[in-house]
Amino acid sequence: MKIIQYPEKQEWDSLLSRPDQDQEEIRNSVSQILEDVKKNGDVALQKYTKALDGVQLDNIKVSDEEMDAAAGKLDDALKEAIRMAAANIEKFHAAQKGEETSVEVIPGLNCWQKPVPIDSIGIYVPGGSAPLFSSVLMMALPARVAGCNNIILTTPPDKEGGVHPAILYAARQSGVNKIYKVGGAQAVAAMAYGTESILRVNKIFGPGNRFVTLAKQLVSMEGVAIDLPAGPSEVLVVADDQAPPRFIAADLLSQAEHGTDSQVLLLSASERLLEDTRREIENMLKELPRKDIAEKALEYSRLILLSNMDEIMDMVNCYAPEHLILATENATELSRQVRNSGSVFIGNYTPESLGDYTSGTNHVLPTNGYAVSHSGVNLDAFVKKITFQRASQDGLGNIGESTMTMARAEGLEAHSMAVQVRMENKSG
Amino acid sequence: MKIIQYPEKQEWDSLLSRPDQDQEEIRNSVSQILEDVKKNGDVALQKYTKALDGVQLDNIKVSDEEMDAAAGKLDDALKEAIRMAAANIEKFHAAQKGEETSVEVIPGLNCWQKPVPIDSIGIYVPGGSAPLFSSVLMMALPARVAGCNNIILTTPPDKEGGVHPAILYAARQSGVNKIYKVGGAQAVAAMAYGTESILRVNKIFGPGNRFVTLAKQLVSMEGVAIDLPAGPSEVLVVADDQAPPRFIAADLLSQAEHGTDSQVLLLSASERLLEDTRREIENMLKELPRKDIAEKALEYSRLILLSNMDEIMDMVNCYAPEHLILATENATELSRQVRNSGSVFIGNYTPESLGDYTSGTNHVLPTNGYAVSHSGVNLDAFVKKITFQRASQDGLGNIGESTMTMARAEGLEAHSMAVQVRMENKSG
Repeated sequence: MKIIQYPEKQEWDSLLSRPDQDQEEIRNSVSQILEDVKKNGDVALQKYTKALDGVQLDNIKVSDEEMDAAAGKLDDALKEAIRMAAANIEKFHAAQKGEETSVEVIPGLNCWQKPVPIDSIGIYVPGGSAPLFSSVLMMALPARVAGCNNIILTTPPDKEGGVHPAILYAARQSGVNKIYKVGGAQAVAAMAYGTESILRVNKIFGPGNRFVTLAKQLVSMEGVAIDLPAGPSEVLVVADDQAPPRFIAADLLSQAEHGTDSQVLLLSASERLLEDTRREIENMLKELPRKDIAEKALEYSRLILLSNMDEIMDMVNCYAPEHLILATENATELSRQVRNSGSVFIGNYTPESLGDYTSGTNHVLPTNGYAVSHSGVNLDAFVKKITFQRASQDGLGNIGESTMTMARAEGLEAHSMAVQVRMENKSG
Repeated sequence: MKIIQYPEKQEWDSLLSRPDQDQEEIRNSVSQILEDVKKNGDVALQKYTKALDGVQLDNIKVSDEEMDAAAGKLDDALKEAIRMAAANIEKFHAAQKGEETSVEVIPGLNCWQKPVPIDSIGIYVPGGSAPLFSSVLMMALPARVAGCNNIILTTPPDKEGGVHPAILYAARQSGVNKIYKVGGAQAVAAMAYGTESILRVNKIFGPGNRFVTLAKQLVSMEGVAIDLPAGPSEVLVVADDQAPPRFIAADLLSQAEHGTDSQVLLLSASERLLEDTRREIENMLKELPRKDIAEKALEYSRLILLSNMDEIMDMVNCYAPEHLILATENATELSRQVRNSGSVFIGNYTPESLGDYTSGTNHVLPTNGYAVSHSGVNLDAFVKKITFQRASQDGLGNIGESTMTMARAEGLEAHSMAVQVRMENKSG
């Protein structure tokens, strides 16, 4: 890990660049899977599950017995932690509930906007070495709070054809209606098109590898909504002299252990802080079970020395980090200068881990610079807002002439006529 | 126009189907334009403008003189109408302003979500026979209300290299910073990648033809946000016996005049209303300047007789119309049953034209069934919502153990360590 000292502004772009994600090479195989599932339904799902997950399944739906058995297989401490996290996530997302906004625009003309839940939601949870039950909570709970009717979940089966009990337990805590043992691009296809056993959904959520991400992007061009395209996870830490280097080192390491392509940045105006943090990282790295992954990610980490807090916040907003930790004296004040980020962690006692699991904020966040224009998953992601308007005969009288003038200026005579026939009508 | 009587539920899907939009055939040419503009900037823009719009431009930026001259070229009535519409649009979108939502999740742990404006917005306004100045208002005004810093606009030049004064006037009323004379996929490319003269933006808005729509979808896969994929415009009218057939006929015609692929549906439980409306359409059609377009669209219109209001509302929600007109006795009550639609027009005196121009609601709405999962353009479309969290040392104490339990269960040891090093720290 090298410390980069006072880079010039014209170097920022290359300094802050993210790894290229070339999807062209997998495009054909993903398109083929989508096509196959669209045409052949469950038969195609079973074929891919056998080929890619190495297990032959007679029934892809998780049974009631499997659901019931899950709780018995977990520690009480873990179950309690999951319930506590669920309560916090539910509370924070419930606070986002929007009211109908209603305006009498002019006398006799009322307009309002009403949030209406999306009917059917599909959630993807990746497989792999660890069961990502926290992601189940992050996607299913806001869907339940929003009032979505159907919440289904797909996840690849393990070699024995099972699903980790923590995923099943989290799903039951979150109101998931049905769980299917299918992963990868084929799971996305199943939720997008529907099969004999899987309901076609209106919107697909969830992280995944390149295949899953591309599959989501491709089905989104056919009319199914998606949450966010997922990229490698990122943290940017801003720290000053008062921040304990051991805290910062642990935060950087917890990002680095996610994957070898994780993005880890530390910005400071204090050379001492950067040096001390680097030393702490080297010490703490030894203790980690996922040491190899973290070490690889840290090779590409960037510890950057800048002149002052203004320059630092400039770079923060330029990079638009998924996670931003502000470990500075005046962190709350500083947080008001954040214009581009997914989620912000303020002060010395707010590690990113809280947002990943328990604080109640969502951990499905924009990566790869998407934070300049995208929110993380929140309650809005599970509703659409429908507008309504109602004019009385007088209301139309107040606005009709202007409407006709504009319609005619755009060459749309029938639009004008639709107003005129009503204004000519003397009854009503 | 044939009246379809009491269709069986299994026929609904084919009855409500929309025209296929095959984009594969134009994919190569759009990709090539994107690539060219990315590489060659303004030179490429000028090349395409000459080839496709038939005009050679030395300067693609609209000058201050052109802006100043615009108002003088317009009727006072039109200028007044534009200002009135602008005031209503501004009022309705300002009412959507969300507050920071803040929650003390547990003692010592605060989480909040804050809307922050997207910095740079690009708006596309199509050219063609009529100047769509109303679309300028619909996209630029909410951007200004949201507080976006840069609002730029692209639109193809006419044969003389000019832009219609109504577009320029509407742009000035709405706080657009800069206007460029460039259209088609090349305009989308310019806003997505930036050129020597055009600022790269964070999000692109605006309707357009197939080339523009595909260009927007393609750049969205490279990280630029977009509003909605645009399809042919749609209206679905629900009417009962009390609705004047002449009003309904005018509404259907105003949709039909948009384009030959416009989608026009009328649902009723009254055969008389359907018959009378059909007759009115035939009479009124003769008077229309855009008769040929409307006639063609009406060939594919669907007048459907159903058994009762429940079945009608079922079909409404199944179709998810961009525009929905409820011309029934109990229209306000009925509107509460709407689950899928872009914008709803209630009662006999609320023609769609109001929403297209003056009522204040947005006219950029989800087509092609996207209303099941997407909102129309609203204030949310111009902000992202960033989450923040701050734990005190006690707050972390209340939640730390659970966080560590969950992190370890997901195999993420460093995530646990980031909590542990803080909990072990006795100072603070």
